[in-house]
Amino acid sequence: GENVKTKSKLVNQNLIDFLSTTNGRLVASLVREFLEFFDLDFTLAVFDPETNIGKDFKYRERSKLIDALGLTELTDKKSPLLSEIMRLSKVSVLKSESPTPT
Amino acid sequence: GENVKTKSKLVNQNLIDFLSTTNGRLVASLVREFLEFFDLDFTLAVFDPETNIGKDFKYRERSKLIDALGLTELTDKKSPLLSEIMRLSKVSVLKSESPTPT
Repeated sequence: GENVKTKSKLVNQNLIDFLSTTNGRLVASLVREFLEFFDLDFTLAVFDPETNIGKDFKYRERSKLIDALGLTELTDKKSPLLSEIMRLSKVSVLKSESPTPT
Repeated sequence: GENVKTKSKLVNQNLIDFLSTTNGRLVASLVREFLEFFDLDFTLAVFDPETNIGKDFKYRERSKLIDALGLTELTDKKSPLLSEIMRLSKVSVLKSESPTPT
């Protein structure tokens, strides 16, 4: 009856909905690839449980992401995949926050 | 002389180099916007110190990112900015990991 689910606070419906879409899973996997790429192990240790990895969905690793995104020939091994996505995006950087001319 | 810097283990040169570029900072800011968008507060609590936010660089918030990326008119408030970047990217999702037809 009045069984209060204390865990419900941890249910992140927005994220669950997002991860229910193919693109959402890809974006989340790209975020995770970024964290992995830079060895942000402490962040990953929190990111995985907080996003319910393995429970709600499984992240794709870099090689599978490259495959899924058709990036094979373009991929720069020295960059996280999100940099490639940005490069391939029509988005242009309009303003540089720090001009830093040398 | 033999002053071993125990902190040196925490220096993430790859990330520092990445964040020294405008595009790197943008990508990192987009990753952070994703974490913020989904209220991944525990992850953020680790992400910020691990990436040296404020120390090495400051993340741009969503509104400033939208501005910087020229996304103003395109932005879907129900999605993290990375979804917009993906949508605007030439990258096409070649394979769906789970066809899930309804």
